[in-house]
Amino acid sequence: MPTNSSLIEPKAINEISYTLYYGTFIHTPSLKELDISFNTIVGVNNLGVIDFIHKNYNPDHHNNMSPVQFFIKNRHFDFIDYSQEPTKFFVPGFIDTHIHASQFPNIGIGLDCPLLDWLNNYTFPLENEFTNSNSTDSKLKFAKDIYSQVIEKTLNNGTTCASYFTTIDPQTTNLFAELLLRFGQRGFVGKVCMDHNETYADYSETFEECIDSMNAIINHLHNLNPQDEILVKPIITPRFAPVCTRDLLFFLGQLSKSHNLPIQTHISENEKEIELVHDLFPDCEDYASVYNKHNLLGESTILAHAIHLTKKERKIIKQKNCSISHCPTSNTFISSGEAPIKKYLYEDEINVSLGTDVSGGFDSSILAIIKHCILVSHHLAMKTKNQKDKLSINDALFMATQGGAQAVGMADQIGTFELGKKFDVQLIDLKSEDSNVDVFDWQLPFKEHHTSIENHKSLSKDEQSKKMFDLLGKWIFSGDDRNCVKVWCNGRLVVNKVRYNHDDRWVMC
Amino acid sequence: MPTNSSLIEPKAINEISYTLYYGTFIHTPSLKELDISFNTIVGVNNLGVIDFIHKNYNPDHHNNMSPVQFFIKNRHFDFIDYSQEPTKFFVPGFIDTHIHASQFPNIGIGLDCPLLDWLNNYTFPLENEFTNSNSTDSKLKFAKDIYSQVIEKTLNNGTTCASYFTTIDPQTTNLFAELLLRFGQRGFVGKVCMDHNETYADYSETFEECIDSMNAIINHLHNLNPQDEILVKPIITPRFAPVCTRDLLFFLGQLSKSHNLPIQTHISENEKEIELVHDLFPDCEDYASVYNKHNLLGESTILAHAIHLTKKERKIIKQKNCSISHCPTSNTFISSGEAPIKKYLYEDEINVSLGTDVSGGFDSSILAIIKHCILVSHHLAMKTKNQKDKLSINDALFMATQGGAQAVGMADQIGTFELGKKFDVQLIDLKSEDSNVDVFDWQLPFKEHHTSIENHKSLSKDEQSKKMFDLLGKWIFSGDDRNCVKVWCNGRLVVNKVRYNHDDRWVMC
Repeated sequence: MPTNSSLIEPKAINEISYTLYYGTFIHTPSLKELDISFNTIVGVNNLGVIDFIHKNYNPDHHNNMSPVQFFIKNRHFDFIDYSQEPTKFFVPGFIDTHIHASQFPNIGIGLDCPLLDWLNNYTFPLENEFTNSNSTDSKLKFAKDIYSQVIEKTLNNGTTCASYFTTIDPQTTNLFAELLLRFGQRGFVGKVCMDHNETYADYSETFEECIDSMNAIINHLHNLNPQDEILVKPIITPRFAPVCTRDLLFFLGQLSKSHNLPIQTHISENEKEIELVHDLFPDCEDYASVYNKHNLLGESTILAHAIHLTKKERKIIKQKNCSISHCPTSNTFISSGEAPIKKYLYEDEINVSLGTDVSGGFDSSILAIIKHCILVSHHLAMKTKNQKDKLSINDALFMATQGGAQAVGMADQIGTFELGKKFDVQLIDLKSEDSNVDVFDWQLPFKEHHTSIENHKSLSKDEQSKKMFDLLGKWIFSGDDRNCVKVWCNGRLVVNKVRYNHDDRWVMC
Repeated sequence: MPTNSSLIEPKAINEISYTLYYGTFIHTPSLKELDISFNTIVGVNNLGVIDFIHKNYNPDHHNNMSPVQFFIKNRHFDFIDYSQEPTKFFVPGFIDTHIHASQFPNIGIGLDCPLLDWLNNYTFPLENEFTNSNSTDSKLKFAKDIYSQVIEKTLNNGTTCASYFTTIDPQTTNLFAELLLRFGQRGFVGKVCMDHNETYADYSETFEECIDSMNAIINHLHNLNPQDEILVKPIITPRFAPVCTRDLLFFLGQLSKSHNLPIQTHISENEKEIELVHDLFPDCEDYASVYNKHNLLGESTILAHAIHLTKKERKIIKQKNCSISHCPTSNTFISSGEAPIKKYLYEDEINVSLGTDVSGGFDSSILAIIKHCILVSHHLAMKTKNQKDKLSINDALFMATQGGAQAVGMADQIGTFELGKKFDVQLIDLKSEDSNVDVFDWQLPFKEHHTSIENHKSLSKDEQSKKMFDLLGKWIFSGDDRNCVKVWCNGRLVVNKVRYNHDDRWVMC
């Protein structure tokens, strides 16, 4: 059985002091806007909420420091200063809106077949292991090994929030939610619902089993969250239309409404899959209509892949305010297609976020998915011969953060640095130990451990921003988990790879 | 001035003992063949040459060990045993057949423009820094910082041999060759030749300057190699047709013949570039004919990119036995196109190798290029709707090793594990410190520190090979420099990331 929830010590809920973070902050307040702020102070209260932001703080210029002086006089706080380290910067924690935790061991395997074969040959057999072990103990051990690893891995890559698929199994799904709390990652927990698996009958459940399992999970997770904080939440997860009966789809639509729970599923990933949906639901005009008919489309619905949508489907998705989870890495690995994301974002004005889609996707890092979504958009642009299909660094960073926040229904709580938002944040260091990023001194936006006067002489603000933008490119195209040196979730430090404290210049005030 | 060559201590030439390496060896003896050999012993003599191979060595089975027993009785040697470590395996060192050492600092920068603009905005200004510094000292320091970093980086990623472009500058090119020797990487050193740079006149040389520079480099490198070993070699490098006069192209063709030196250049990377070549050489039918007319195509010619070749060009390239260097990462980054490599390999039977093309390519690791070439071939297959356009893991591994060896004219010396070949090798460890690869125990081909009898009971040879093949997929799709724990060049250990010796089980015999 899952651990008694009272024994769990949620990592993102312990007591913290008020803290001022000082340094370079980079985020995308809106789709078209990339904000690079040097010498910025962000204050985080003991609930983990940002309640103070001061840009261009310059301790040498006495005239412009009054708000901070005021602050300093009136509060006790910790002060963490990276302002003089040009290769360090804060970015919002990544939000992965589509990841199959249970498929984690299959990463890198199964290159040889398209979606429907890939499911039968690789995915269903592995997911079935979570239900079919010799004993409950061995099942839980099997699941715990995998689930711990995937949470640790994604957190180490800066993912502070993710929307997960587990398996059909309720016990190990509850265990997964407990592990999320223990490691300190915000998570949406999706027990996979599928009562009609024709091609791989071994791995399926009955309609009644699914109802029982969903109820068990909703109850368990309700009791799991600490007071006043929702860190883990169930998400209604019909796997995808072809493996669900109409009864189940209707039930899940109702369940979402009655419990006010978000929904996630797959849509229009592969052409054969679309044909199959047409055959199975001849009364529905298209794939999106199948979900729409069963009340599964709404502003808290995440639709993964959405590669081959018709104009009409895009219109429904926009009308219903659903979000798309774009999974470029997976779409290339199993040759599903190249989704026209730029069009979705700018023509249809649909919200798009990013998903690793482990293990269709072979990389559990959203930083890698940022890179891949740009590269995949280049392939699309080469095909359409339309430069406008290319995604920019801004677009990609937005989808990885604020686009993700909107997809999981937390647009006002995470995704950017704004007053009132939770401090779900990564500290990036391009010169971390063993970093794969190569930066030469002449490429830095300012000198290391400069005095502000020294620095002022050398580069204009615009030149500094240009250099910082180039470093962002370096981070995206050659960075990895090694550059994500600290991660905060809910204002709590949940990952710290800095081995020696002298690396930080802490000043206790 | 470059260092006096007598002061250089080449790393890949020091004295070594005869050594037997025991473990799992993986290589591609031919394009269609992937050989996974467990329990194999490879003997390397004190010249760094493989002179003994024994497969399926099993110390428990006295009947099949006679050749090894014979060997043990008659020789003194070191014995390095990884045979009981299922996540460790030997693969041939990678061969990078197209990399611009001088562009290394630009990695990750310049996403916004296609080839010709990219050259003018990013590449030429940086390369020009190697010629234009205030003083010789500062120029050499600038070059040394960059060149040391690129060699260290590529070696750390398992590249034991590379064909480099430097800049037009002879002094820093000579310095680069010295650094290759010092770090212990086999290298082809290509001073860029370009006497007709119309679009960026600041960065060019006259025909006479180019001749003088080439002679200086050929002389310097001739004196640089240790006795009886050619570790660094000049390679004739007309940058690409549009920046060379006809006189220069003719001269370089002759120079290659008179000094028996290989040739490298770019071909058919970008559609605008192809139009430009047509405009500049109206008397030549196509791009390949420009090089052919100037005697630049032969069996020691490496043609980088080769994306948009006509049938006729493919025929010339095959007839002349040139090799192609496929640079998928670069071709996607600056949106040049998707080269139909599978067709080149299997229909035209052209030799194809892999190039990082730093910094058009943003990754200096050939392991990443293996991954990218597979992914890019998926995009091509999605476009052509022809599954046959997809490259396999075998294809990619072949191009990265034996295909590369053939491209640099060393097919009989490096690229596979064969008697008489140099031991240019990587030791891969999927469970190295801080590895990004996740492997669960039940995915291993055999148990760690098994006795052979134990192991025999569990899995058949075929099952073992299947599991090892899946691990290869994991290495390719989630591995990186951290998994390349040791690198030998010319039989000498030139990279060793294993911090503690107890990690190795050395037995001195």
